[in-house]
Amino acid sequence: MYGELMPNTEPGRRFVALAEEHAADFTTRADQHDREGSFPFENIESLQKSGFMAATVPEEFGGIGLASGHDHMVGMSRLARGCASTAIASNMHLVSARTMARIWEQRDHADPGVVAATSAFLKAIGAGQLIACVPGTEAGTDISSPMAEVTPVEGGYVLNGRKMFGTLSPAAQIVFSMARLKRDDGGYQRVLAVIPRGTPGMEILDNWDALGMRASGSGDVVYSDCKLPAASVVPVGEWGVLGGNGGPLDTMNQAGTLTACFLGIAEEAQRIAIEMAGRRKGPRGIRMADRSGIQQLIAENEIDLFVARAALERGGRALDEAGAADTVSAEADAENMKEGQCMKRAVEGNAIRIVDRAMAISGGAGYMSKHPLSRLYRDVRAGPFMQPFGAYEVLEYIGKVTLGIDPPLDR
Amino acid sequence: MYGELMPNTEPGRRFVALAEEHAADFTTRADQHDREGSFPFENIESLQKSGFMAATVPEEFGGIGLASGHDHMVGMSRLARGCASTAIASNMHLVSARTMARIWEQRDHADPGVVAATSAFLKAIGAGQLIACVPGTEAGTDISSPMAEVTPVEGGYVLNGRKMFGTLSPAAQIVFSMARLKRDDGGYQRVLAVIPRGTPGMEILDNWDALGMRASGSGDVVYSDCKLPAASVVPVGEWGVLGGNGGPLDTMNQAGTLTACFLGIAEEAQRIAIEMAGRRKGPRGIRMADRSGIQQLIAENEIDLFVARAALERGGRALDEAGAADTVSAEADAENMKEGQCMKRAVEGNAIRIVDRAMAISGGAGYMSKHPLSRLYRDVRAGPFMQPFGAYEVLEYIGKVTLGIDPPLDR
Amino acid sequence: MYGELMPNTEPGRRFVALAEEHAADFTTRADQHDREGSFPFENIESLQKSGFMAATVPEEFGGIGLASGHDHMVGMSRLARGCASTAIASNMHLVSARTMARIWEQRDHADPGVVAATSAFLKAIGAGQLIACVPGTEAGTDISSPMAEVTPVEGGYVLNGRKMFGTLSPAAQIVFSMARLKRDDGGYQRVLAVIPRGTPGMEILDNWDALGMRASGSGDVVYSDCKLPAASVVPVGEWGVLGGNGGPLDTMNQAGTLTACFLGIAEEAQRIAIEMAGRRKGPRGIRMADRSGIQQLIAENEIDLFVARAALERGGRALDEAGAADTVSAEADAENMKEGQCMKRAVEGNAIRIVDRAMAISGGAGYMSKHPLSRLYRDVRAGPFMQPFGAYEVLEYIGKVTLGIDPPLDR
Amino acid sequence: MYGELMPNTEPGRRFVALAEEHAADFTTRADQHDREGSFPFENIESLQKSGFMAATVPEEFGGIGLASGHDHMVGMSRLARGCASTAIASNMHLVSARTMARIWEQRDHADPGVVAATSAFLKAIGAGQLIACVPGTEAGTDISSPMAEVTPVEGGYVLNGRKMFGTLSPAAQIVFSMARLKRDDGGYQRVLAVIPRGTPGMEILDNWDALGMRASGSGDVVYSDCKLPAASVVPVGEWGVLGGNGGPLDTMNQAGTLTACFLGIAEEAQRIAIEMAGRRKGPRGIRMADRSGIQQLIAENEIDLFVARAALERGGRALDEAGAADTVSAEADAENMKEGQCMKRAVEGNAIRIVDRAMAISGGAGYMSKHPLSRLYRDVRAGPFMQPFGAYEVLEYIGKVTLGIDPPLDR
Repeated sequence: MYGELMPNTEPGRRFVALAEEHAADFTTRADQHDREGSFPFENIESLQKSGFMAATVPEEFGGIGLASGHDHMVGMSRLARGCASTAIASNMHLVSARTMARIWEQRDHADPGVVAATSAFLKAIGAGQLIACVPGTEAGTDISSPMAEVTPVEGGYVLNGRKMFGTLSPAAQIVFSMARLKRDDGGYQRVLAVIPRGTPGMEILDNWDALGMRASGSGDVVYSDCKLPAASVVPVGEWGVLGGNGGPLDTMNQAGTLTACFLGIAEEAQRIAIEMAGRRKGPRGIRMADRSGIQQLIAENEIDLFVARAALERGGRALDEAGAADTVSAEADAENMKEGQCMKRAVEGNAIRIVDRAMAISGGAGYMSKHPLSRLYRDVRAGPFMQPFGAYEVLEYIGKVTLGIDPPLDR
Repeated sequence: MYGELMPNTEPGRRFVALAEEHAADFTTRADQHDREGSFPFENIESLQKSGFMAATVPEEFGGIGLASGHDHMVGMSRLARGCASTAIASNMHLVSARTMARIWEQRDHADPGVVAATSAFLKAIGAGQLIACVPGTEAGTDISSPMAEVTPVEGGYVLNGRKMFGTLSPAAQIVFSMARLKRDDGGYQRVLAVIPRGTPGMEILDNWDALGMRASGSGDVVYSDCKLPAASVVPVGEWGVLGGNGGPLDTMNQAGTLTACFLGIAEEAQRIAIEMAGRRKGPRGIRMADRSGIQQLIAENEIDLFVARAALERGGRALDEAGAADTVSAEADAENMKEGQCMKRAVEGNAIRIVDRAMAISGGAGYMSKHPLSRLYRDVRAGPFMQPFGAYEVLEYIGKVTLGIDPPLDR
Repeated sequence: MYGELMPNTEPGRRFVALAEEHAADFTTRADQHDREGSFPFENIESLQKSGFMAATVPEEFGGIGLASGHDHMVGMSRLARGCASTAIASNMHLVSARTMARIWEQRDHADPGVVAATSAFLKAIGAGQLIACVPGTEAGTDISSPMAEVTPVEGGYVLNGRKMFGTLSPAAQIVFSMARLKRDDGGYQRVLAVIPRGTPGMEILDNWDALGMRASGSGDVVYSDCKLPAASVVPVGEWGVLGGNGGPLDTMNQAGTLTACFLGIAEEAQRIAIEMAGRRKGPRGIRMADRSGIQQLIAENEIDLFVARAALERGGRALDEAGAADTVSAEADAENMKEGQCMKRAVEGNAIRIVDRAMAISGGAGYMSKHPLSRLYRDVRAGPFMQPFGAYEVLEYIGKVTLGIDPPLDR
Repeated sequence: MYGELMPNTEPGRRFVALAEEHAADFTTRADQHDREGSFPFENIESLQKSGFMAATVPEEFGGIGLASGHDHMVGMSRLARGCASTAIASNMHLVSARTMARIWEQRDHADPGVVAATSAFLKAIGAGQLIACVPGTEAGTDISSPMAEVTPVEGGYVLNGRKMFGTLSPAAQIVFSMARLKRDDGGYQRVLAVIPRGTPGMEILDNWDALGMRASGSGDVVYSDCKLPAASVVPVGEWGVLGGNGGPLDTMNQAGTLTACFLGIAEEAQRIAIEMAGRRKGPRGIRMADRSGIQQLIAENEIDLFVARAALERGGRALDEAGAADTVSAEADAENMKEGQCMKRAVEGNAIRIVDRAMAISGGAGYMSKHPLSRLYRDVRAGPFMQPFGAYEVLEYIGKVTLGIDPPLDR
């Protein structure tokens, strides 16, 4: 596809090639999983077998060693062309592994216990034996202020709470969940709880039933007096302070790679639209591609695709540069997060518009349930709900950071 | 609801009151029919019992005597708040009856046989004994150029062809379908075929399965050597010449009242959004309505609602004035059609944006299948596919009419 | 012009006919006044001679008796086609006269002194001997919170302050200005000061030099210990409370009729664009009107014109209905103001887009200073600055009123 | 400025640093030149002295050796922050020199005469002794189909015709103009005429008077039997075939670097808006930056700035990669041109929106002639008129190239 994003690194090239192969396969089952709302276990298995699920694991542990956020984005956009649900599901795992890989890269300056634990994780993932998911959302709060809570008990903690959007949870062997822990002063700190599948008190519900991304396995995960050893509860920061899982860089990495999936949806929609316009004929045998209104819509889509790709490229490169920097100031963190949100907004908004125009070009055919556009139309709308900012607060955030107002959100 | 459209005539007031009552009932079943893709037979029955289905039938025949296109639009917008599928389905029948009523109103200047036939229809509808549907679309052509064809045989004609979007067909006792009839000079004329349910050779398929409007019963109607008496094939005009079923006025009436349904969807979405924003709380207990981003989205929706209502009011009044005019020039016809398309585009485009913002305000809740917004999001997208012009040709049409270019479409 | 707004009342028809005549004349001088930034005294004189400036004066006093806000809007849109600066300038006077006429219409329930004063004003205006302007804006505050202040002195008051946007002031014989007056409790009340031209201490500056509306005479009016008799200071309401000059109805009337001027600008731009497209040829002699991209832009303009007209019609009719109502609740006031702001936003936004597309259609010609489009492009941008709400606060206002939040603005 | 574009090469860094210095100087005179419509001779002189005008000249000839299109764009965006008119004027010269430098870089494969001529030009420019302009537009045709014509006469040719938009012409010592030359078969070929200032028959008119870019010296250049030696008429391609001055790469380079100027305008507008919002206060002393509507507008501008920068970065890098490629197919040419037009449209459209929002944030102050925003508002509107495609044909071009339709324009 002319103009499509291209990887910059060698691991990136391997990752993208794998993504394209898988996409060609997954696209054949995407509509069926969508219709049924079933989780594509076979896709995840296939991604494990090929080494795709170990992409962000360092080569030392058997992975591909994908470290470029930019290239990670490129690959996710490719995979999402075939099945967006599988793409966002697998990405949950890939970013978790990438976060661990980053800790491991900085092992000389990190807590030895943490390094040992991440090494073990990376090794298991590299061996194709572990899938992780990271349900972060809860109703009525934001990701920096989890209401799920760990309480000290003898020998560790118990965790109580309910997470939504547990994407990939049906296939996860391990679940990472943010929670809060009461401090002595009455306030809270934010902790990361690590819960292996099968732990009593953790229930992974099969209740995902949404407008789109229906094969992403994004049901609830419920914790009821779920007992955890002390080592499975890791402090990560202050409760209620904006910032994500494992620092802004990881938040951005997660947000960016998720965002890339929506470019893939848009590219697939435009591909379908071009193919239909070239093939179908209207009254008096005139080809749709020769109608001026169709050309106009195709052109508007190309412009929006150009912009979405440009935005991801800029964001991806910024991410890679930030990752290479030695230290990052709090101010730069906020500016980086702001840029990431500008990218997210531009890409996802354009993707929605592109799919909508593809629908218009389809002339009614795309509105039928059996047509892939009707799936893309629903899948693409998920974008603006992706964390860390709701569609209704992202402008407030960007505006306040730009104007130097702190805190950047009234919530 | 402040600012909502209000009827101008007494029959209009009765019609709108009925629409509101039915909407309150239908809304309780709308999600279930949507999920199942089932046709709401009980809704149609209820509309028949209340006299709603006879609204456009003159009082002489037991109807409400609704003759104002404006008021008809108002009522459809109200009904669509409860169940948009039922609204567009019932409207197919209402506009057919209105077309007949118009013929009957001009009975002094019309063919006595036609007057007699329409009187019989109106009487049956007024008595609650007849439901009509008007499948008009065919794949690969436009409504002015039907490929379905009637061929003379002894004692009448046979009809062959396939119609799509046969909205309301599951409940129809009679089907009106445009077809073509070969003229002696080798060209075609356009005819209206009238086919009672049960006629051999007409198959009403139960194959409607679409992104939205899933309870509208819009499957295919197939004609295979369907034999019709001579009186059931009525000449209506030249084949391939733009203009609709029964003249531009009826085309506009049909387009306008259908368009009004999309205002109803938008009003319902905004009502839900306002209700959710006032009730739900986010982090730290702050009410969503007090977030500036939510206020902004609500405001943009109000502006778009204002515009959609204003557009329908203007279009409805123009329709009523055109209906009152003695004669209409071909040029005025084109200008009226153009204005109608401006209205359609403005209303449907705004409705789509309004539902999208309501989705954003819902903060993810609206993306769940069980939430009514997820249905409205799919239903509202049907608008731009509605005849007579596809989304990709309406600008060409409006532009050329404005610039005085004939023919107004290259198709 | 097909689809243009039409007056509903007999005085309206006279007013609109006059507006069209004047527009045909003013258009010949509009570019020159724009270039020079000169005030079109001869236009105002011409409007006085024809009776246009007395349009809103009751017939009893020699006026046209224009009382329909809708028809007033229609006339202003017509006049603005010829010269938008003259239109907004004359409108300042017309709405003042209309406010007085409304007081006079309710003379049975009003203060006899006020009735006598307004009668005298109306008589003078009806006789073509008086022009009024109403500078309301001050830097750093809003129109409900004037910082200009009257202070009691022997025999009356002195007024100090500075008003901006004193549109029409070069020709005004009398100036109405809102000011504040300290109450005994330390708070302020809002008062209307009436200052005849020539009053010592009032300086009407010739300092209007703006991007557009350059012939509107909108310079500053400065008050320096300007002495006024007691009868020239009329209490109108509480300081800082939203609401305009003489109540919401007059605020809406003023806002609506000003808004209508921007429709006129847009209509003129589209007329020019259509004329150019039909006449000009590009490479290989192909007429611009036959280019698909031009047709597309023309069509988008027609849709936006349709919407702008529909919005004004709806707003105008609502204004006339509100004027006919006996009493209006505070809640209805807010809802009416909200609807008026929705109308304003829709009309002005569309007008800006229409002129922009006309510029694109002109293909560079419209960018030349000598081309009328270059004036329309600058004039039309004035719309969003018009009171009572800035472009940056109108969404907050509409959103909060819709969500039932009080006060509707954080300022 | 956080997020601003940064150069990648060493010559680029020198160029950008110079641009920033000049911008800081030019901004002090920009409003005055705009008001007077005067050409900033002193700016051009200053650019010559500093070596800026020789930036694209190879170091061998005394230039900076700027060869990266990306970095060239970055520098132009910086210069345009200070004075957009000077930026687009100087860029005409810079791209001419860059075209010559490219010929010189390929001297091993080029005509020795052409190499000698370009070397002479580059030497003169490197020595600060030559300024070139390239008026390309003519009324009623496009740049690939010049109507200006050279006719063979004894000892050379005579040139007749009229060029518009002769940006920088007041300061040019040499003018490059496309013309046509009749072939023996009755058709035309396209030639480049090189005319030194002072050549009899060439008149550089001082008639530039436009809405914006008023200090760019973009008047007409008229040729009346202008006699040229044979060596001054260089064949460049077929008449009427899309493609620009010196091949697609140069067209893209010219279009890209011009487009970058509009980013600079937008960045300056946003800088002013942020500064005003932080400083100004409204009613009750509330800072504008603390109003939610202002934050929203600032945020929308940041998103649009992010996109504009991303689009230029992507386009600039693509340009540099295309420049490094050995051969370029015709298909790749069309795709590159398409991408360039996507970039142009995205950047210029966003720039217009950004300035418009800055105007809204200014709350009326920006509408005054003395305020720099009123200049930026007019300057930024020039973008869509820039060659090679009018705003009304660019979608047709992009759409047809995407759909594989040839020729890509019906003109």
